[in-house]
Order: sequence, then structure tokens, then C-alpha cells
Amino acid sequence: MIRVGVVGGTGYTGVELLRLLLRHPAISLELITSRGEAGRRVDDLFPSLLGVSDLCFTDPAGADYRQCDVVFFATPHNVAMGEVPALLAQGVRVVDLSADFRLHDVAVWEQWYGESHAAPALCETAVYGLPETHRDAIRSAQLVACPGCYPTAVQLGFLPLLEAGIVDSSTLIASCGSGVSGAGRQAKLGGLLTEAGESFAAYGVAGHRHLPEMEQGLSGMTDQAVKLTFVPHLVPMSRGIHATLFATLTAGDVDLQGLYEDRFADEPSVLVLAAGAHPATRNVRGANVCQLAVARPQGRDTVVVMSVIDNLVKGAAGQAVQAMNLMFGQPESAGLEGIALAP
Amino acid sequence: MIRVGVVGGTGYTGVELLRLLLRHPAISLELITSRGEAGRRVDDLFPSLLGVSDLCFTDPAGADYRQCDVVFFATPHNVAMGEVPALLAQGVRVVDLSADFRLHDVAVWEQWYGESHAAPALCETAVYGLPETHRDAIRSAQLVACPGCYPTAVQLGFLPLLEAGIVDSSTLIASCGSGVSGAGRQAKLGGLLTEAGESFAAYGVAGHRHLPEMEQGLSGMTDQAVKLTFVPHLVPMSRGIHATLFATLTAGDVDLQGLYEDRFADEPSVLVLAAGAHPATRNVRGANVCQLAVARPQGRDTVVVMSVIDNLVKGAAGQAVQAMNLMFGQPESAGLEGIALAP
Amino acid sequence: MIRVGVVGGTGYTGVELLRLLLRHPAISLELITSRGEAGRRVDDLFPSLLGVSDLCFTDPAGADYRQCDVVFFATPHNVAMGEVPALLAQGVRVVDLSADFRLHDVAVWEQWYGESHAAPALCETAVYGLPETHRDAIRSAQLVACPGCYPTAVQLGFLPLLEAGIVDSSTLIASCGSGVSGAGRQAKLGGLLTEAGESFAAYGVAGHRHLPEMEQGLSGMTDQAVKLTFVPHLVPMSRGIHATLFATLTAGDVDLQGLYEDRFADEPSVLVLAAGAHPATRNVRGANVCQLAVARPQGRDTVVVMSVIDNLVKGAAGQAVQAMNLMFGQPESAGLEGIALAP
Amino acid sequence: MIRVGVVGGTGYTGVELLRLLLRHPAISLELITSRGEAGRRVDDLFPSLLGVSDLCFTDPAGADYRQCDVVFFATPHNVAMGEVPALLAQGVRVVDLSADFRLHDVAVWEQWYGESHAAPALCETAVYGLPETHRDAIRSAQLVACPGCYPTAVQLGFLPLLEAGIVDSSTLIASCGSGVSGAGRQAKLGGLLTEAGESFAAYGVAGHRHLPEMEQGLSGMTDQAVKLTFVPHLVPMSRGIHATLFATLTAGDVDLQGLYEDRFADEPSVLVLAAGAHPATRNVRGANVCQLAVARPQGRDTVVVMSVIDNLVKGAAGQAVQAMNLMFGQPESAGLEGIALAP
Repeated sequence: MIRVGVVGGTGYTGVELLRLLLRHPAISLELITSRGEAGRRVDDLFPSLLGVSDLCFTDPAGADYRQCDVVFFATPHNVAMGEVPALLAQGVRVVDLSADFRLHDVAVWEQWYGESHAAPALCETAVYGLPETHRDAIRSAQLVACPGCYPTAVQLGFLPLLEAGIVDSSTLIASCGSGVSGAGRQAKLGGLLTEAGESFAAYGVAGHRHLPEMEQGLSGMTDQAVKLTFVPHLVPMSRGIHATLFATLTAGDVDLQGLYEDRFADEPSVLVLAAGAHPATRNVRGANVCQLAVARPQGRDTVVVMSVIDNLVKGAAGQAVQAMNLMFGQPESAGLEGIALAP
Repeated sequence: MIRVGVVGGTGYTGVELLRLLLRHPAISLELITSRGEAGRRVDDLFPSLLGVSDLCFTDPAGADYRQCDVVFFATPHNVAMGEVPALLAQGVRVVDLSADFRLHDVAVWEQWYGESHAAPALCETAVYGLPETHRDAIRSAQLVACPGCYPTAVQLGFLPLLEAGIVDSSTLIASCGSGVSGAGRQAKLGGLLTEAGESFAAYGVAGHRHLPEMEQGLSGMTDQAVKLTFVPHLVPMSRGIHATLFATLTAGDVDLQGLYEDRFADEPSVLVLAAGAHPATRNVRGANVCQLAVARPQGRDTVVVMSVIDNLVKGAAGQAVQAMNLMFGQPESAGLEGIALAP
Repeated sequence: MIRVGVVGGTGYTGVELLRLLLRHPAISLELITSRGEAGRRVDDLFPSLLGVSDLCFTDPAGADYRQCDVVFFATPHNVAMGEVPALLAQGVRVVDLSADFRLHDVAVWEQWYGESHAAPALCETAVYGLPETHRDAIRSAQLVACPGCYPTAVQLGFLPLLEAGIVDSSTLIASCGSGVSGAGRQAKLGGLLTEAGESFAAYGVAGHRHLPEMEQGLSGMTDQAVKLTFVPHLVPMSRGIHATLFATLTAGDVDLQGLYEDRFADEPSVLVLAAGAHPATRNVRGANVCQLAVARPQGRDTVVVMSVIDNLVKGAAGQAVQAMNLMFGQPESAGLEGIALAP
Repeated sequence: MIRVGVVGGTGYTGVELLRLLLRHPAISLELITSRGEAGRRVDDLFPSLLGVSDLCFTDPAGADYRQCDVVFFATPHNVAMGEVPALLAQGVRVVDLSADFRLHDVAVWEQWYGESHAAPALCETAVYGLPETHRDAIRSAQLVACPGCYPTAVQLGFLPLLEAGIVDSSTLIASCGSGVSGAGRQAKLGGLLTEAGESFAAYGVAGHRHLPEMEQGLSGMTDQAVKLTFVPHLVPMSRGIHATLFATLTAGDVDLQGLYEDRFADEPSVLVLAAGAHPATRNVRGANVCQLAVARPQGRDTVVVMSVIDNLVKGAAGQAVQAMNLMFGQPESAGLEGIALAP
């Protein structure tokens, strides 16, 4: 059994991670920490876990992570970077779901997050946890930086086009929508049902922290310079990310459907829909899967890719478990076979 | 392996049954029939099943159910009663999720459904599939009639009170709310997001077909005459049933919390919340569980019970699988360990 | 023109009041105060008002209410009771939308609100602002205490039954649902779309502050003692209150439909639906109206009444404007003719 | 008083038109026809109109439109084109909310709608009812073809850029989202709350009938060739359109904010938000207004425009009334002063 610890399991990513880990066939959950909820039963905070686990939150101050083979960080950014170096030094491997180690260039990180990075050396050695592009490196990684939710949907969507070198990588566009859980379990006005419900709006058009992560990842798929215009929108639903991607074809005659099907044929958590279909977030709710479709409207030069994930699963906790499976020689989908809940 | 057939898997109950059966450790899904969708891949109709199953719908006309140990009917009422007698004669056991065999009194059935019953003899022998009240009978049943969604939530909620004989059973009230999936996967105006969304309304106040089923079940818990006033409401959500129950105490000093905890202590799919808590449908979404709470506001004589289930799981497909597990000597929760999806 | 001031217009009741007042034909909005937003344009806080008004919030400290004929308090409880005495002394009439003056018995108020009342003498003289029961008193009132949202729906629903003396007033039951805006424009976890959306749950079963207000109002309709069991639920929608009321008939042969139609025949903001209909909150969204239906399921002794309002309109801001119209000799529906927004 | 008739008022556009017309200060509603609902009270079909109007639907067969100054068609496409010629011949002016006369090129219409046009000559003379581009022509029009909902949001958004000639008009992109009411009041599976709720998906990527209308309108704003890639999405809400527009700047140094503010300074139903703001559909719900914002993320060459309307108001019924006001010399916003309902 893989002995697992979780740091900061009081947010939506945390409870989703617990949902997956508590049914994983090969792990034992050793501890879960929370400064604010120390001593409280986990199922008191999350009644969806009633009858499933007797676990209590423990205080991170006294937590002994040496009993763990791997520790997940389900914390806001700026926590993991302070604690990970000590864990690695103790030989504990780390899967970080926060943004602390996603950017290799520390200067870019500090610019977008507006603070100094506490562990700059690890930014270079951390492995980006997108199995579809970094599978081998993940297997041997000591520290995995799990991709953000938008970056997962966007990168998987653009991947075949950029690898094939058939689009202009300097004019990429991503128009994306996210469910409200993407904003976390925090008492903010904008997330109220009365504010976010029955409405649709863009946000962060001037600059979203996922932009540099996406440009970094997309740049790794091509030799050309990458520029992405990214517009996220808030969708009146709890879960789900939908990325609508636009790129200008530079090659003439391409079998886009075949290109996508071939690229993802062996990927356990990516599914290419039949030509003409439109993926919907409802069909991946709760599942560790990305559903994709590609189209070329009116036969013109603008390719449209649609990519959907559950932001809390393939966009966070599920992908983190997928990385852990790779790190510990488990079947890649162990604990992730749950079927999407539809309707 | 238990060899399973499904009749009529094109509704929400059907796809939910598939979600559970396709991950059940001890069954093999032999066939699924649909008149309208014969020949079509199941995952083409339900993209949430993409990558999970290669099953196609087969025509019921040519279906050979003798290869099955058990057949589930996930059909509208009026289908099973025509086909079940032949199946039973072939030695195939049946779990019927429809309303055809829920009422023991054929006359009552015919009054509420407005047609003749095609297999009246089976109405008496069918076993009512509520494990909490009929567990032993289910084990040996040839034909199980699965409870309706409202009746499951309402009966579990009233059960301890009626068994203990401490309320006036002739003035029971159930004010219930259901998600829109309770109306089935049918193109009806009333189920449109534009009609059901952002609204709340009662329906069927003059008489709902679940009323005689509930009064029959409640009558089985007490020697007294039972009268229930039942008001269902449509809630702007997909899944979930919430029953708010009112009963007048006839006994003075009762430990209601203890009564409920004791009654359900050994039930694998019923959970009694701590005193003062309020169950929410979100905490049972996708899970085969009923969460309950009991209260006595202002210390007066009116007891309030709150009972929540996922109408498609404990209120339909999950409870059906629970019955099948009992019928075939499986662990009662086999295939039903999935944790609720929250948020 | 009636010169109007608004204290505390930064909540949902406040913006709804502005929506109505800014289109009222006979008022001029002189000032709107807010401690937190002083100096800010109102349409910057509420972009739905863009192009409608150039008003800015002013600091309550320096506000001169003597320029006003009437001042509305759209504040949380515990504000109006500190400021109203001075206003009344200046001859300014007051319409209070908060709970400060709804209960005539100061001791009861202090028990439910857990603090001393700052203006106990006014509790007795304040007029309860339900036009259907207090129309004449409202006309000449100096201080109107607007009913709460649940109390409006519940009292209007029980009114004909209690006035006619045909039900047992000691076993009344109200099972109600409210949209999330009822909780106000406050950043609280429970109001997040991720928490309140796709879910249904009761709350406050042990005791809700609207209970004593309702029992006080209902007691005014009958000579008998009144006891009410009140269970509010949170509905995953923004606006709307639905009250489902249960009462035991003590008279035998009653024309309930006629009773209701007669009682409300001349009421401009109450509509009795045809027999057999079910009111829905969607049909009163944005309108100052209560839609009602009455039924007697199975011809038994339990009467069921369904009553819907928009909690922000007939349950708050609209009813406040209705009171103001009465106070200043305006047509009772002036500024309130807007038709419900459906869908 | 302007004497008004409505053909086909049983859909969402129809009831919205009634909501506006029944409160318009200068019109008298003479008749409303419906084949299917002839003889039925309008408020029986739409209980939101209870207490507002005693109107009944009349059979179109016997309808005498000569009593009308203007007739609105709130019908599906393919109805108006059969009836309008006779009306015009009688001197009755027509405002058509359907798609029948939106395209000037009959061949294009027939290609996208897959049938012959019954009144091809009128396609050329019909005036496109977008006041911001065709105000003068609308004033004197006998037949106004009201713009589609997406085309209204998209054309208003691109208008300043194309008129100024500062973007590449051959690579325009519109990524749009619509509430479910855009699909009409029809019993279709895809519009069920269980299907459309809690989900987000694109549709019609291969080709949507609003595409040629948009390209026609955009072409009228520039001398350059126009190509638009249009991806509509279904948003889990009732009302609202959000258009996110992308265009490549060809001019270097442009004051985009000033350009937009100047262009719409005198427009009564278009509002440009402050720089950095994001329009939300919730802020225009029920109002005849388009709120716009323009941005240039990262200072790069891709301009992003966000444009929101209520699809049933500025995208349909409201804009139709606005056209009627222009046709009959009324103040342009008469009957359209209602403030958006938020939350």
C-alpha cells in the first residue's frame, strides 16, 4: 500500500481528492492536515463522506510526514513552496496541486504572483504533471506540479495541432468557460448563486495566472514562438471546464479528425469524439477524462477545437492521482475508473 | 459472475443502472434492449459511457433472456407486467424498477393507473424491494418491485416513528421536493430549463401515484390506520429528493434521536445525522444512501423528519442493485461504494 | 413629488427598492446612504442601473433627512431602531424593511434577536405593513414595519382560513422554500452556487426568527390560540418564496375556492388561481403579487394552501413601496405595475 | 394609440412581446393569434400575465388585421413570408421577429433554410431592424426584419472596429453563449434542465443560420471582405447572450475605449462599460440594452470585445418594440424603460 498524506484538504480540490483516495485500491490515507479545522472530523465538514471515513484533520504543526510515501498539497499557492523542500529532503515524494511549481521560470512566476518564490531551485526540477506530455518524467519524479484546470483543457486541445506544426502558433485563441468550483471553497460575493447563477460573463481578460502556464506548455510542443489570447468565463454551474480553441491553419490539406484520433489513441484519459460531435461538460462530470472534438467550419482556415474536463478531476484531483499512479508503478487509471455522473 | 440483462435502458434510470452495473465486481452485462434504439451503441446515446463499454442496444423482439440470471426493467410502467410472467417461467429472476408490481392490491393499482393489470397474480407475490423493511424476503424473491423515489425517502423517514407507535398515523404529512430527473428523460415542456429552472412549485396535489404506494408501505409498519397528505414539489436541480415529514407525537417523552440511531444502526445505506443537522441532497448525489435527521421544533408535539436521497440511486438504480446483491448472495453494498459527488 | 431617502441600499433589498423607486411616477429620490460605499456611484456597485441614475451613495453621518418626506431602511436589523426615533421627531415618516419593529412584544424580540431593543416604545406604535390586513392603519402610519418574506407568503395563505374560523389554529404547518437572495448580499459559504446550487435542504428547523412574527400575525386573524410549525428550505434559485401550508379543517362542508376568491377579490396584489392550479415562483418573478391556490387532497380534512411571492418584491421592496403609496395617497400600485419576467 | 396585432404569441418571444406591449403607453393591443391556442385566455397559458390582461388567442384564419396599424410576427421562420405580402397590400406595417426577411440574398436564405422563399421580392425591400445601423430606414419602413439574437450582440460588438477600418475583417471570431430560451418554448430533449443544466457545450459549429446574417451585417460596415468564425454555446441559464469577439488589429496606435464610447454616445440602448470592466448577462436581464466592453490583452494585436444582451429583449421583443417606436414617431425607448432585474 502506498502511504498517503494530504495537506490542506478543506477546499473543493481537497474533498475531491479524498473522494478518489478513499476508494483507491492501493493506498492507505495516513493523515490529512488543516490549520483551521484541526481536530474536526472530516465528515463533519464534508457530510458527503459520512459513513466512509473516520478521519480527522490534524494540525500541520505536529504532522509527521515521514510515515508517508507521498504527500499531496491541496492548498492555495504559496504554501507548498515553503514546505516541500523539507519533505523532499526526508525522501517523501510530493504531488502539488497548487500553482507553486508550475512555471519553470522563477521570474515569470514572481511577476504573475507578485511575491518572491521560496524555493526557486525546485521550479526547474519539478515535473509538470500532464501525463499526455510528461509521462516518463512523472514516473521518476520526486516533485510533480499538477497542471491548472484551464491549462489541462487548453493544452490537450492544441497538442496535436502544435506537434504537427500545421497552425500559426503566434495567433492562438482560447475562449474558455469554468464552473464556479474553479474559484475554490471561499466565501466571496462573486461566487454566490445570486451573483454567478443565471449569468454568464468573462473575467480576467487583462491577464489570468494560467496564461503563462499555458504559453509555457504550448511552447514545449513546437519550435515556433507561441502567443495565446485567453479569455476565461464564469459559467453558472458547479463543475466543468470547456475550452473553445481557435487556430489558423498553415498547412492546406489535413485530416484533422485522423490527427486527433491517432495522437490520443493510447491515452487512457483522453477521448476524441466522432466528427461533428460537440463535447459537453456534463458527460465528464466526476470522471478523469478529457473529451475532445475538432472541426473546420465552412472549410475555412480557422480550426476550432472543443475540449471538456471536470475541473476538479482531470483538472485537479484526478490528474494528481493519475500522476501518483505513474510515480508508484500502479496502473495509470487505478482508482479513477468511476464513470461520469450524468445527468 | 451474475449474468444481467436490462430492458429499456434509454432513460435516466437506465443510464444510472448502467453506470453502476458496468463497475460492479460480480456481474456481467449480457444484453440491454431498446425498441427505439436497437442497433445503436449505448455510448452514442450516452457519451458519459464513452470508453467504458462497447455495448449496443438490441431489439427486445429477438432478445434471449435465458442467458441471464436476472433482468432489470428500467421501463415506464405498463411494460414489465406484460413480459415478466414469461421470464419468471424461464427461471429468470426479475428486478422491476417501474411501478407495475409495487401495489399488492390490483384494484388500487388499476384505479390509479387507469388501465387493467396484465399480471394481477404477481402483484401479490412480488416482493417490495425496500431492504430496510423487506430484506429477508428480497433474498429469496423471484420478482422484486423496487420502491418509487418519493416512497423510499418518505418510508425510511417515518419508519422509526411508526414502528415505535408514538405518532398519530392518521394525520401524516409529507412535503417533498424532487429534482427534474424524476420526470424522466422525456421531451416535455415542464422539464425545460426555461420552465423548471429558477422556479419552485408543487404539482400533483390532487393525487400522485406514489401516494397509495406510500400508504401501503406505511401501513405495514403499524397496526393503526394510516392517512398521508403528500405534496410533491419540483426543485430546479437535476437529482435529489428531499422529504420533509410532519407527524403528531402521541407519546410524551421520547428520545427521538436515539430512536432513529438505533433503528438504522446496522443499515448500510441509511445514515442518521447528528442532532440539529439538516440533510442536503448535495451530500448524497450519486451515492446509494439516505441521510436522515429528526427534530422537535419548540419542543412541541409536531415531529419533523428530513430525509434525502438521490432519486436515481437510492431512489431507483442503486436500490435495485442493492436488491440484486441480496438476491444473489453478494455483499449488500457491492458495486455501490461510490462516494457522493460534492459539490 | 414624494421626496424619498434610502438608508443602506447596498443589499439585494436595496437594489430592488432602487429598481422600483427609479421608475415610480410620483417620487424623487433625494439621497441614498451607505457607510461602506459612500462616494461611490450606485451604478458602479450595481451595473444593472447603468444609464438609469447618476446617484452616488452618501455617508449616513452627514445625511440630512429633513429634505425627505419618507425614508426607507433597507438595512440589517439593529440599524433602524437606533435612527428612527430621531427621524420621526423631525416629522419624517419611515418605512422599515428590517425586522426591528415587526414584533409588538419587545420581550419576544429581545429573546429571538439576542439583544436589547433600542426603541421599545416604537414596537407598539409601529404599523405592520401588510396591506391585506392593515391597510387603513398604514395610510396614517408614521412608522411602518414591513413584513418579512416568509411571513408575507404564509400569512396571506392562512388568512381566509383563520378569519373564517374553519381550521384548527393550534396545529398549523408551513413548509416553505426560498431562493438564495433571501440570505442577502453577503459573502457566506452557504450561499455559493457550489453549495446552494443543485441541492435542496431545510435550515433553521429548531427556530427561525420569522416564526414569532408569523404567530403574531396569524394570532391577529383569530380568537383561538395559534401554533405554527415552520420549516424553511433553501431552493437553488435566486428569487422566490413558495409556502406550502397545511391545516386541519374543523368545519365540514366548506367552499374553499369561493372563500379564497371572495377574500382577495379586491386585493390589487393577491391573485387566487383556478381550482386545481399550482402557483410557481417563476410567474411572480419581479412582480408585486402573491399567487395563491387552495386544495383539499382526497377530500380529507387536511387543507393544503400554496402561496408564492417574489421575496424581494411582494416579500420586501415592492410591499414597502405599496405601503408608501398608501401613506401618501398614491394609487396603491403606483410604480408596481411591472409584469413578472417569465421565463 | 398605435393599434397592434401579434401573430403567434405562444413562444418565449411572444410572451416577452406581450410583457412589453401591455405596459407600452401608446399602443392598444387589438388581437393576438394562435392556431393551436385559439379561444384560450392568454393568462391561462402564461400565468405571469394573470391580472394584467383579459386577452384571448384568436384563430389566425378569421383574424382581421385591417384594424391594426402594425402587426408583429413572433412565429418560427416560414410563417411570415406567407402572410406578410397581403398585410402590406392592406397598408398594415409589419415587424417580423422571425428569420424570414433578414437576408437580402434570397439564394443564401434558401441555401441555409433548405426551402424556397415565398416572398423573394420582399427580401430586398425589408429593412434590417438594427437601430444602431439602420435607424432612418426603420422610420419609414413598411416591413422590418428584426435581427437575430446572436447577430445583435455580435454586430454591435464589431461595429466600431469595422467602421473604423482598424481590424482584419477576414479573420473575425465570435465565441458566444446563449441561455436556453434562445431555443424557444419547445419540448426538446436538449433543453431539459437535466440536459442543459449544470453543463456547457458548443453546438452548431459546422454552421449556424445566424452566420450568413452576421456576415451580411458586418459586410455593411466595411469595404473589405468579411469572414467570421462563429461558435455558439448553450449556457445553463434561461436568458442572456454573451458574445466574446476576437479581431486582429491592423492599425497600431488606437484608443479603443474612446472609439467605443464615441460611437455609442448617443445610442439609447447601448452602454459602453469603463475600461477593465466585464459585462455580465445578469445586468441586462429584462432590459432593452446591450452592455459592451473592449480590451487588448497584454497589449498584443488581438482585440477582445465582450457584448451582452437579453436575447428575448434587445435580442428580440425589445428591439422589435424599439423599431415600432421609430416607425410610428414614438420616443425610441417608449415602453422600454424597465430596469434589469438583478439578481
